[in-house]
Amino acid sequence: MAIFNNKNKEALELGFGTKNYSNRVRFLGTDGKVNVHRAGMGIKNLDVYHWLITTSILSLVLVILSSYVFVNLIFALVYYIIGPQNFGGLDAETPMQQFINLFFFSAQTITTLGYGHIYPVGNAASIAAAIESLLGLLTFALATGVLYGRFSRPKAHLLYSNNILISPYKTGKGIMFRIANRKQYELIESEVMVTIALNNLETQKREFFNLKLEISRINFLALSWTIVHPLDEESPLFGLTKKDLAERDVEFIILIKAINDTYSQTVYSRNSYKAEEMVENAKFKPLTPEANKRGRVRLVVTDIHLYDVVS
Amino acid sequence: MAIFNNKNKEALELGFGTKNYSNRVRFLGTDGKVNVHRAGMGIKNLDVYHWLITTSILSLVLVILSSYVFVNLIFALVYYIIGPQNFGGLDAETPMQQFINLFFFSAQTITTLGYGHIYPVGNAASIAAAIESLLGLLTFALATGVLYGRFSRPKAHLLYSNNILISPYKTGKGIMFRIANRKQYELIESEVMVTIALNNLETQKREFFNLKLEISRINFLALSWTIVHPLDEESPLFGLTKKDLAERDVEFIILIKAINDTYSQTVYSRNSYKAEEMVENAKFKPLTPEANKRGRVRLVVTDIHLYDVVS
Amino acid sequence: MAIFNNKNKEALELGFGTKNYSNRVRFLGTDGKVNVHRAGMGIKNLDVYHWLITTSILSLVLVILSSYVFVNLIFALVYYIIGPQNFGGLDAETPMQQFINLFFFSAQTITTLGYGHIYPVGNAASIAAAIESLLGLLTFALATGVLYGRFSRPKAHLLYSNNILISPYKTGKGIMFRIANRKQYELIESEVMVTIALNNLETQKREFFNLKLEISRINFLALSWTIVHPLDEESPLFGLTKKDLAERDVEFIILIKAINDTYSQTVYSRNSYKAEEMVENAKFKPLTPEANKRGRVRLVVTDIHLYDVVS
Amino acid sequence: MAIFNNKNKEALELGFGTKNYSNRVRFLGTDGKVNVHRAGMGIKNLDVYHWLITTSILSLVLVILSSYVFVNLIFALVYYIIGPQNFGGLDAETPMQQFINLFFFSAQTITTLGYGHIYPVGNAASIAAAIESLLGLLTFALATGVLYGRFSRPKAHLLYSNNILISPYKTGKGIMFRIANRKQYELIESEVMVTIALNNLETQKREFFNLKLEISRINFLALSWTIVHPLDEESPLFGLTKKDLAERDVEFIILIKAINDTYSQTVYSRNSYKAEEMVENAKFKPLTPEANKRGRVRLVVTDIHLYDVVS
Repeated sequence: MAIFNNKNKEALELGFGTKNYSNRVRFLGTDGKVNVHRAGMGIKNLDVYHWLITTSILSLVLVILSSYVFVNLIFALVYYIIGPQNFGGLDAETPMQQFINLFFFSAQTITTLGYGHIYPVGNAASIAAAIESLLGLLTFALATGVLYGRFSRPKAHLLYSNNILISPYKTGKGIMFRIANRKQYELIESEVMVTIALNNLETQKREFFNLKLEISRINFLALSWTIVHPLDEESPLFGLTKKDLAERDVEFIILIKAINDTYSQTVYSRNSYKAEEMVENAKFKPLTPEANKRGRVRLVVTDIHLYDVVS
Repeated sequence: MAIFNNKNKEALELGFGTKNYSNRVRFLGTDGKVNVHRAGMGIKNLDVYHWLITTSILSLVLVILSSYVFVNLIFALVYYIIGPQNFGGLDAETPMQQFINLFFFSAQTITTLGYGHIYPVGNAASIAAAIESLLGLLTFALATGVLYGRFSRPKAHLLYSNNILISPYKTGKGIMFRIANRKQYELIESEVMVTIALNNLETQKREFFNLKLEISRINFLALSWTIVHPLDEESPLFGLTKKDLAERDVEFIILIKAINDTYSQTVYSRNSYKAEEMVENAKFKPLTPEANKRGRVRLVVTDIHLYDVVS
Repeated sequence: MAIFNNKNKEALELGFGTKNYSNRVRFLGTDGKVNVHRAGMGIKNLDVYHWLITTSILSLVLVILSSYVFVNLIFALVYYIIGPQNFGGLDAETPMQQFINLFFFSAQTITTLGYGHIYPVGNAASIAAAIESLLGLLTFALATGVLYGRFSRPKAHLLYSNNILISPYKTGKGIMFRIANRKQYELIESEVMVTIALNNLETQKREFFNLKLEISRINFLALSWTIVHPLDEESPLFGLTKKDLAERDVEFIILIKAINDTYSQTVYSRNSYKAEEMVENAKFKPLTPEANKRGRVRLVVTDIHLYDVVS
Repeated sequence: MAIFNNKNKEALELGFGTKNYSNRVRFLGTDGKVNVHRAGMGIKNLDVYHWLITTSILSLVLVILSSYVFVNLIFALVYYIIGPQNFGGLDAETPMQQFINLFFFSAQTITTLGYGHIYPVGNAASIAAAIESLLGLLTFALATGVLYGRFSRPKAHLLYSNNILISPYKTGKGIMFRIANRKQYELIESEVMVTIALNNLETQKREFFNLKLEISRINFLALSWTIVHPLDEESPLFGLTKKDLAERDVEFIILIKAINDTYSQTVYSRNSYKAEEMVENAKFKPLTPEANKRGRVRLVVTDIHLYDVVS
């Protein structure tokens, strides 16, 4: 059962459009991100949760820290306007130090720490503190969700060979790349689809073809997997050289679907190769996994990049 | 592999029934909500979690704030009945101010803030405070779940063209609308089903037909997608004008299924068009995405609404 | 595409075995629970998380409250053994009141409330309090997960008609029951499988058959759905009366699969009918949903139970 | 509909490679873990979340406790460097006791307990405490996610018979093993795939074959399920004895997929049998579930291990 729409071998609709751009286009970055910026709806194009889930750890830490400082400054200002005399235990001498102490009081309130050596006395101060502690709890509820969302997000940590090769294959040639799982969890029922985009030099349109693969599905991705497109007469790339493909601004668009069985999650991985990552007359070095005496197999995943030039 | 039940082209069962209502009916709102109110089971028809997950942010904030005030009022009352003399640090002069201070004490307890300048002394007061702090933790555990549920809920932020057009298509005509993804995440393996509901003027029953589509599935929804139903002789709408369709109270019911691959979630989007959103003799303006020098493509998604009148 | 294994119309393996029990057996309760107790592995048969997720709200509240009291008693005892003199602010006169105050101190510690009017002074007391507060946080982290797990658990709130009818159907008869969704979210792509279990009076084995249905899948479950098995010559029930079926201890085992599109979750619902819930010579009353002027349809879901006796 | 890739009955690609190791290899442990260590990317091979989710409870508790002590030691050191004179209520006489009290203050801060009998006075101390309480909240947000992730992780608690038997089957023989669900939740739509790996003595390559099963899918796994591979002429094992299979280092690789319908989660279970777990001329004892008067069936799941030797 094919999960992907492989039937139409003619110029197929991938949702990338058929426009032939004057600049060279790479629809998929090597990080798997689609290279399209969607504008026109102002703030409705934004997606805060998506950003929080996918941004780097460093950005996230900076956002959390600066929000923390900012919110505490706001509440320190509110408390200061209400008046330092409405707080017990606030024995500061200068207005500046009063403000700073109210800043710390705010931090102790929003985290629900509440040492209590400073405490609200008047009603306004108590109301503001009650609101701040509720806000703190809700914010940290949100933070819990975001952190859980980040860590539990389905991910396929696939390693792709740096290059896509034109290799000897059976009596002819084939286009090949390799993948491996670089984490310790298992991927099962992996399935791959390879599509190429290339400019039609006659019609000046960008065309898309699905490439027929020798094997498009495997049950376990325990070691590595070499994905092969035979360059036979049925192939839309039959007879084309790397130079021809570069001229047509070729892009190999790869979509892999698998199940991460630690979490029973379906995961997706995307990658693309352009002509500059193509190597002609080369073949991958066989991997050399070793089994120790207890029957455990050790594989160096980065060996999937290695290839030999063939004459 | 079709995921939807497309086989039966004759009056098919959608679960909407075949009753021909005397009032005009729109089964699907433009917000994708099914326009049915289910009654008869009293409180068992209610679904609090569903409401909390789907209501607007504003409603949610109001519910949280008013619950916070309400619960603190209840506990302030309990503490007041137990007696202000059972609380240390409660130096208020009037009964009213005592009640207010106990309200703040309650807020400091339910959030587990616990400054401690007011504290329970007697056993009854301590028991009530122990219960309130437990209640607070459980409530905020619930709030965490609700907030996470809201943000992690699978959503497809599709933009539908404002109108559905009857356009020139090949040698005849076709019914067309356009969609685009307005967020930065990617939708893959998108699939669409279009069903029409219309009154049969003879039998006085409401009939349902699936419309055959030129393409019903695409692998990436990177730019936009124009969904086309050819008005050929096989179409149940062949030969009907907008006026005919309005007379039969036509409704185009659209269901789109896709995979949001940031979260590997299957997402659904629904929409409907009625006769008043139909435009005859028009065709969509081609979109004009532009690629910058780094190969990044910029698309103005709101351009999908634009069309030209054709003679 | 059938999701269920419908092909084998002969005695098929459901995983219930073919044993013909001497007592009457109902494999599926009307609550959808499979009526099997699995023993033999002691504590490894237990599943605490499953219990916490599926038990009633009342049981859950009782478990939480009694655990809270129990843990605080344990820590109060620890603190008492460490010695009341190691706590500041513990101005109780009798040993009993000291223990009670330490109990409240424990509650203020495990919830991280920490008023501070009682506080640990010695190292042993401080260590115990540090451990208790960590334990509290971890426990409430667990509670958050359990509560979220309960509320976000995929559920199909289907209402089944109280009875399964033998009704006139086309030129012969059919077996029918009705379902409706009693909540406001939508169920899409609903699919049903009906299997019967009955004793073979000759072989003394229990046999299982899938029943062929008029329609086994609908796209929306907006109103109600009458599921019909035609009693034609192909049916394994052809020619059998209610009395015959009771004699063979018949059980109709119903499995419904649908997608709750608020959460994009696949949900399952099970139910069973026994001979005593079967009514011969009856047919369901048509439902009477009404559309108001704004096109909104109101349905009384409990009307699905209603039927008329036919001669 | 087969979910697994069963078509290619010839040497099929499982992602385990075809290398014939000099040491005996067991690709799947009896715990279902794939016996492959993936190296070569340094820290990028690590997966902390995966470890936290899958490690034993004991390891997790030890990691949490030692992290708690470690982080508090770090902050105690920071506070000590800032200077004990910057903390109110820190009435310790020796530097050592001052450090210990700052350690407890740190614990009271990171848990947001905040008794307040020790409190920060200077700005540096207040800033450090504000950072520590934020860190505490974020850490416990993470802990909430990890604990929820552990408990909500989809799991199939299948019990496999200790042995795989060569039993009489119809007129010939069959290879059989049994499974049962040992928990109280239900598994539905269970599907099994059995693959064998064995060395080809001629080519010195490791070959993989899918075994044809009598039944490969059942709707309910209410009692037990005996999975049977008929040893007929089509079988790649036809005519081979246990001794032959041991010589070829046979491994039966079993993958089971089912739906846990409490959580509507697809769950996977894997297991393997080697020649030493194979028993010739034996057959499984029939299970003896009993139904009580209320129609509830009791099954001793560990009985699935039992077999009788046949002549």
